[in-house]
Amino acid sequence: MKILSVVRVPTELTGRSMSMSNRFLGDVQEHNHPHILLLQIGNTFCKLPGGRLKPGENEIEGLKRKLSSKLAANNSPALQPNWQIGECVAMWWRPNFETIMYPYCPPHITKPKECKKLFVVHLTEREYFAVPKNLKLLAVPLFELYDNVQRYGPVISTIPQQLSRFQFNMIPN
Amino acid sequence: MKILSVVRVPTELTGRSMSMSNRFLGDVQEHNHPHILLLQIGNTFCKLPGGRLKPGENEIEGLKRKLSSKLAANNSPALQPNWQIGECVAMWWRPNFETIMYPYCPPHITKPKECKKLFVVHLTEREYFAVPKNLKLLAVPLFELYDNVQRYGPVISTIPQQLSRFQFNMIPN
Repeated sequence: MKILSVVRVPTELTGRSMSMSNRFLGDVQEHNHPHILLLQIGNTFCKLPGGRLKPGENEIEGLKRKLSSKLAANNSPALQPNWQIGECVAMWWRPNFETIMYPYCPPHITKPKECKKLFVVHLTEREYFAVPKNLKLLAVPLFELYDNVQRYGPVISTIPQQLSRFQFNMIPN
Repeated sequence: MKILSVVRVPTELTGRSMSMSNRFLGDVQEHNHPHILLLQIGNTFCKLPGGRLKPGENEIEGLKRKLSSKLAANNSPALQPNWQIGECVAMWWRPNFETIMYPYCPPHITKPKECKKLFVVHLTEREYFAVPKNLKLLAVPLFELYDNVQRYGPVISTIPQQLSRFQFNMIPN
């Protein structure tokens, strides 16, 4: 099994200072079609598992920490996933205090407030996840996300286009 | 200077047979913001330079052939660009004889009709292009393409999201 993960990163890029953040998205395979792991809050809002990095924290280590805090069964150390963080598939920039993000840093912005990075996360064939009662863990197929900005927003709905260059090898049980 | 290129590829992927095609897209940098090279036909329709591969043709060689036939000043051998084909940034699938394409092969499709691949093309600092009189060569900034599916269609308008993982290094003259 494989998952795809996205992270909001606090890296100093080209000398820019940004606030700390870190987020991930997951992708599982079912019925020979990739699925993305999403956390649903309430009845409609979905987000990628992840979160903000601590100041100075390494982005890969911070993503693993966030994945464990969001998805791991913390009272069962034997069931902790061994997070394998893979390729960065996308970056989104928040230029100011508004929530709107862009897939590039707008030309007139020298100090963006935040950068969100999405990474692939490789999972073993079988993983155990635990989520709080107020959240639902969904595995959403790419064809459901594609062209569905109304339901999933601009970041999650374009994951299919960002993953299109990958060839997914299905590993039978 | 750098350009980004996209190709429609006839590759046999996972044993699927597909028709031959090949297309590219270009990306130049101006004012510290990446630009994409597009060919405008008439007043509105834009496409990426490129085209179909010949049966059995290697996709990289076929893309170079198409780039030369579409963009090179063929009567000036000294001005021929040395096309450096880089990373694949996206793949689009056409499942049947309709023109609609998807950034994944739909689960029920075993023999898609066509696959379009987009590649980065690296250019030297200065390149000479020649285009026929009925076409216009445009360098369109990412912020103009983003979220502009009405003007550029689903393939070209999501190039910014597909390039977001790259950091563009601006090389001064």
